[in-house]
Amino acid sequence: MSGTRFSHKEVHQLVVGILKKVNVPDKDAHEVAECLVKADLQGIGSHGVTRLPIYLKRMRQGVTKARPTITFDCAPDKAMGLIDGDNGLGIVVGSKAMSHAIDLAGKFGIGAVGVKNSHHFGPAGHYVRKAVNHRMIGLATCNVPSVMAPFGGRKPFLGTNPLAVGIPAKKYPPLIFDMATSIVAHGKIIWAAQRKEPIPEGWAIDENGNPTTDSTAAMKGCVLPFGGPKGSALSLIFDILSGVLTGAAYGKNIGTQVDFSRVQNIGHFFIVFNIGQFLDEDLFLERMDDLLDQLKSVPPAPGFSEVQAPGDPQILSEEENTRNGIVLSPDRIEKLQELAEELGVPFPRAL
Amino acid sequence: MSGTRFSHKEVHQLVVGILKKVNVPDKDAHEVAECLVKADLQGIGSHGVTRLPIYLKRMRQGVTKARPTITFDCAPDKAMGLIDGDNGLGIVVGSKAMSHAIDLAGKFGIGAVGVKNSHHFGPAGHYVRKAVNHRMIGLATCNVPSVMAPFGGRKPFLGTNPLAVGIPAKKYPPLIFDMATSIVAHGKIIWAAQRKEPIPEGWAIDENGNPTTDSTAAMKGCVLPFGGPKGSALSLIFDILSGVLTGAAYGKNIGTQVDFSRVQNIGHFFIVFNIGQFLDEDLFLERMDDLLDQLKSVPPAPGFSEVQAPGDPQILSEEENTRNGIVLSPDRIEKLQELAEELGVPFPRAL
Repeated sequence: MSGTRFSHKEVHQLVVGILKKVNVPDKDAHEVAECLVKADLQGIGSHGVTRLPIYLKRMRQGVTKARPTITFDCAPDKAMGLIDGDNGLGIVVGSKAMSHAIDLAGKFGIGAVGVKNSHHFGPAGHYVRKAVNHRMIGLATCNVPSVMAPFGGRKPFLGTNPLAVGIPAKKYPPLIFDMATSIVAHGKIIWAAQRKEPIPEGWAIDENGNPTTDSTAAMKGCVLPFGGPKGSALSLIFDILSGVLTGAAYGKNIGTQVDFSRVQNIGHFFIVFNIGQFLDEDLFLERMDDLLDQLKSVPPAPGFSEVQAPGDPQILSEEENTRNGIVLSPDRIEKLQELAEELGVPFPRAL
Repeated sequence: MSGTRFSHKEVHQLVVGILKKVNVPDKDAHEVAECLVKADLQGIGSHGVTRLPIYLKRMRQGVTKARPTITFDCAPDKAMGLIDGDNGLGIVVGSKAMSHAIDLAGKFGIGAVGVKNSHHFGPAGHYVRKAVNHRMIGLATCNVPSVMAPFGGRKPFLGTNPLAVGIPAKKYPPLIFDMATSIVAHGKIIWAAQRKEPIPEGWAIDENGNPTTDSTAAMKGCVLPFGGPKGSALSLIFDILSGVLTGAAYGKNIGTQVDFSRVQNIGHFFIVFNIGQFLDEDLFLERMDDLLDQLKSVPPAPGFSEVQAPGDPQILSEEENTRNGIVLSPDRIEKLQELAEELGVPFPRAL
């Protein structure tokens, strides 16, 4: 990706500085910074610090709260509880919810926490990494506004509702799998349309519902779920768990991030499993290593140098970007610079 | 499908009769019959009574137990427990596990049960339907022997490890979603190879790992996961939950159904959510109806008459086959007739 490199630590400080200027508590500002900068480190720029200006605008318009009163409703004998996020920042609300799910799993062997009245929560991988840090298995999903046609349809209805799963291993890094239910990030179609480049077959349909490789036609149509009817069903199910079940918005009723006139009322859903409930933790970690050994010993297909585990490409990006700095594109830099200047926060120097 | 139609009730009795002759308890025989016949009713013949001869052979060879001693290990204050299936029939073991998961969800709001030492458990939808019958949400997965190349690989490693999700609704039938993680049932490639017909692009690779539409070459190669790297990762994760975590076999170590020299040691994993934990049940059901109303009001794409909910095609098949009888192909009839004759069980008359 073309752009300029910055120290990830300095970008973290920039994000914290900006958030604190609009009244976000120090701890919450660090949580958001960690989540967004990690996405940039891992090469998932679409979910990185590029999101900050929108979060800021929402808080300044009063539709996202910098200091929400987050409540957790869970009877002491239940392993599943509900968070009301009071329209706080999604990353702040989601992190609190995941930490409750981890507590519940510690107590009951499994724990689940649903969330309503939240916002965009960044990459779902952020949350399952917290479970892995407790040597537990974590699942995270959420619903997001309609952008995808369901299988057999020709207008946007489903969100790209993601699923992340985090599982610890021993000699291997933890398996952190984080997928959207769309076949491709919507941003890649926008990117191609801006450059008037074609897109691969199967990514999108035009406004009449016909498959298209014309990125401009795809912009008038919509992106498709991954895996045909299966991805379409999974997206719907993640909306049911995150939205229908929690009392959050769902389907067409979810507010978009850039509609500054209303709350999004996005829902999340987290599940955590305590490994020790079934197996000695060390034995589990060894079994994970053995499974990953088996996976990586499968001979590669033509065009591949090896079989990778889910999350391996992100680990490689993170190693490179930690060393060399994270890459920000000129338009991202410009928007962040404007914000920093306006709020009187020092902007990091390019590497 | 070409074949002969039989009354599903009489086929149920046939299955029960055959199983009881090899010492399967009456209740268990009915459980297996219900599961397999439902698959045939729903047009999923690959998971229907066609499986019975293999189950029988395994029991007669002593590698699957007709009367296993199934044990459940779960402390009274935990919401997640482990079943040791003692190498019983997968459908018997799985059904018992799901019923424990439902009990746990009733008590704790959520319940999960892992299973080791089990066998092929039929269609995963069988189990989530039980949760739905309790007005709960159910998830079921399991691992199965290696048949798919992982993303980037050219030899079989992953199983077609399925996922089923069941969610109740009010005016709509319950949403019962049941998918394999392969792009297509392996049986469809066998079917095409027998007729020397080509297969669609993307289904399979040849023995060198190159994409192929030649069904004969595909038989020497292997089937692919759905959705590229995403389906590949989901299959791996279902193996981790069902196998690595429970103490069952996993990866390449899972015994095949037709290796009569050893147990399969397949693992399952079930999760149940109690809806009332978050929302009034009726309100949830109305919200589900509203979501499905929204889904079905999406205008259809060219070539589709309407947008269907996951599971709709199976519901239509079931209506038709309940009315007109289930369809069995000549080779299936022959094998079942042989068994029935040998064991002295009356064989139903064709409709």
